[in-house]
Amino acid sequence: MRLKKFRRLGRRDDVSADELAQMQHQLDEMALREITNLVERMPSVDGAKVLRMLPPDRSLAVFDVLDPAHQAELVSALGDERVVAYFDSMGAEDRVALLDNLPAQIAERLLQDLDEDDQRVTNVVLGYGKGTVGRTMSPAVPDVTPDMTVREVVEMLRADVEELETIYTVPVIDEDRTLVGMVSLRRLFRARGDETIGEVMYEPESVHAMDEDEGAARWLMSTDLLAVPVVDEDERLVGIFTYDEAQDVVEQADTEDSARVGASEPLGKPYLSTPVTQLVRSRVVWLLVLAISATLTVKVLDVFEETLEQAVVLAAFIPLLTGTGGNTGNQAATTVTRALALDDVRKRDVFHVMWRELRVGMMLGAVLGLLGVVIAGLVYDTNIGLTIGATLFMICSVSATVGGMMPIVAKAIGADPAVFSNPFISTFCDATGLIIYFLIARAILQI
Amino acid sequence: MRLKKFRRLGRRDDVSADELAQMQHQLDEMALREITNLVERMPSVDGAKVLRMLPPDRSLAVFDVLDPAHQAELVSALGDERVVAYFDSMGAEDRVALLDNLPAQIAERLLQDLDEDDQRVTNVVLGYGKGTVGRTMSPAVPDVTPDMTVREVVEMLRADVEELETIYTVPVIDEDRTLVGMVSLRRLFRARGDETIGEVMYEPESVHAMDEDEGAARWLMSTDLLAVPVVDEDERLVGIFTYDEAQDVVEQADTEDSARVGASEPLGKPYLSTPVTQLVRSRVVWLLVLAISATLTVKVLDVFEETLEQAVVLAAFIPLLTGTGGNTGNQAATTVTRALALDDVRKRDVFHVMWRELRVGMMLGAVLGLLGVVIAGLVYDTNIGLTIGATLFMICSVSATVGGMMPIVAKAIGADPAVFSNPFISTFCDATGLIIYFLIARAILQI
Repeated sequence: MRLKKFRRLGRRDDVSADELAQMQHQLDEMALREITNLVERMPSVDGAKVLRMLPPDRSLAVFDVLDPAHQAELVSALGDERVVAYFDSMGAEDRVALLDNLPAQIAERLLQDLDEDDQRVTNVVLGYGKGTVGRTMSPAVPDVTPDMTVREVVEMLRADVEELETIYTVPVIDEDRTLVGMVSLRRLFRARGDETIGEVMYEPESVHAMDEDEGAARWLMSTDLLAVPVVDEDERLVGIFTYDEAQDVVEQADTEDSARVGASEPLGKPYLSTPVTQLVRSRVVWLLVLAISATLTVKVLDVFEETLEQAVVLAAFIPLLTGTGGNTGNQAATTVTRALALDDVRKRDVFHVMWRELRVGMMLGAVLGLLGVVIAGLVYDTNIGLTIGATLFMICSVSATVGGMMPIVAKAIGADPAVFSNPFISTFCDATGLIIYFLIARAILQI
Repeated sequence: MRLKKFRRLGRRDDVSADELAQMQHQLDEMALREITNLVERMPSVDGAKVLRMLPPDRSLAVFDVLDPAHQAELVSALGDERVVAYFDSMGAEDRVALLDNLPAQIAERLLQDLDEDDQRVTNVVLGYGKGTVGRTMSPAVPDVTPDMTVREVVEMLRADVEELETIYTVPVIDEDRTLVGMVSLRRLFRARGDETIGEVMYEPESVHAMDEDEGAARWLMSTDLLAVPVVDEDERLVGIFTYDEAQDVVEQADTEDSARVGASEPLGKPYLSTPVTQLVRSRVVWLLVLAISATLTVKVLDVFEETLEQAVVLAAFIPLLTGTGGNTGNQAATTVTRALALDDVRKRDVFHVMWRELRVGMMLGAVLGLLGVVIAGLVYDTNIGLTIGATLFMICSVSATVGGMMPIVAKAIGADPAVFSNPFISTFCDATGLIIYFLIARAILQI
């Protein structure tokens, strides 16, 4: 019952501080998971109030699992001491993710307040560019060498367990810090205490700190490894990249892809805690760009105005034909975009994809075209039927081919393939579809 | 260099057995990851040839990481003994995923060939419906009770490590098999050997075997747990649901969402290993459904034919206006669909979402409408400008509202929200957009 009342509060955009204060004792009884849920569904200013009402350890636990962009907004709404406390207790990689979302002067002040050790590890992570593995990894790794015994390493892990991001995957290095092996806790567990690490370790898998984080994350998640050592260009160990971090990267990438496929900018935080004006900002630019590209279709129709005047009936099919072109193009584009994201398709496959999609488009076009000939032929007349049928066949063939290639071309020129999946394909298919339509109509109807 | 040649083979649709046979010695030198990649990019019949050329343990390792639907196709292309060997060595949950994709008689024969013990655990998993946690979990869990000492449990885990899906998360049960706690290996690691499990275990998190797998998987991945115990309706332990299994569920769900947003059926296996005819099948039904819905727009335009004849210039704006409506609707729909998938928005939020999207739509409509008035007013005349501007405002408001609500409504009636994100919204926006357009045009132009 109490939860219900709270949930109702979360749904409104205005919760007064008084109302929240009355609920203090209810917060004490709620599970952390429920409180997190509540904060994720509130505007930041109210989320900050809830956090301030919690005891420090609970508020930290809630703050810790929020998206970095959401954390950043809460920071400006929270008191100073509270923020400094959060910041001190975060792992270096989470700290950097938050810093990336804060205004420069706040970020700098927070960094200066850290103790020397924390500053050092944070700077290691900050030294790598955004979107790299180095920026997302955890720099806290134990120093394990092949000559140590299993017993020594187990003791060492036991002593350092609080500092380490994971104890389940242990990288092994030589005296230069070059990565020479790795060993799972599972393996250590089965080994005798007096065996050396050199005897039980196996060939290390690794990723480079400069690698793109999304690719490395998807690769890690496709293996059954829980973490992978991170090395620099000299193969020296600099950190560890865990399943957990990889999962955050992949979820964020998929959310961004989904937003871009839908022609808006990613929000970076939960929908309900995003102000309406920010939703507008995330969409208006794309909408304008697309509307302006669409003036091309106005131009095309202007050119064919005479044809239209002679056969107004042609206008009736415009949305059906351009819509079908858009749908065919989008089918191909979303399939290929996802395949690119999962690394099932790569840049060098562009011609292979083109040839596949051309055949798919022609088969789809044949089915729809035949139907178009029959139906439009019966309802209107034979020539209209032929025009619609031939146009559908051509539009499907062109749209599928272009739709399948666009995401790969986008990736090749360094753009986000998702942007080219839906919005631009639709606009492109509209314009080319109209040209195909009127050229075919002119030829068949002889106007 | 050798790899390169192989990759080229993978890109063609016809690799002769002879060509493959010549590469036997190259396969021996390739890393498993490379071979998997190769198989994922080939038609199944060639994939099967590659698998047959590998020694049993390596071919098993490759087979194990493929998608179940892809595995199923390979099964019919592979020799019988090879398949039985794969099947024997799989975990119960992977075995069931493969069975789900096989024709009934093959599935039954494979099941009968299993030894009694394997049959029993497989049947536990098969007892739960598709799409539930029970169907995806691993039934192999150790029997750990609170009275055991840490030392005893560690010894037990060490002895059983080969059979267990994970040793990193250990569920604790009482004599009725009721779940009473859980403990991580990390915690056991820090404990003294003579402490009892009752002293070191913590409150268990758990999911129910009948829970929907996608929701449970997303929840597990949002925590920092590596696995969660699975219980039946009496809170008795029946298995464990690991991060790894959760990740497969989430990746597949996201791939399905992405396909449906693009108006096609999910393929269930990598793009390049899917035959062209299967790509056509995955798209043709949606395309037909959408084309048939789009005949509604033909009907609408038929009704307004007279208006069009009096002002053919109106036709020129049709694709721009319907396109903008589709884009606005899709922006809202994809944002809400993703929020639903991530559980940021729930069914009961429908009116909250509607109100938010109405405001977003009106603001977007105001921006675009104003631009429309000015530009169309200058290029054509004031009345045309006013018509376009007013239509854009109305279309944006309606499309954003409907686009935001549709995925929630779809979920409420048990349909896949992703289906309603893009394809249907576009068609809906086309038809309503046209009606709005011509009604406004008639009023302003007085025709």
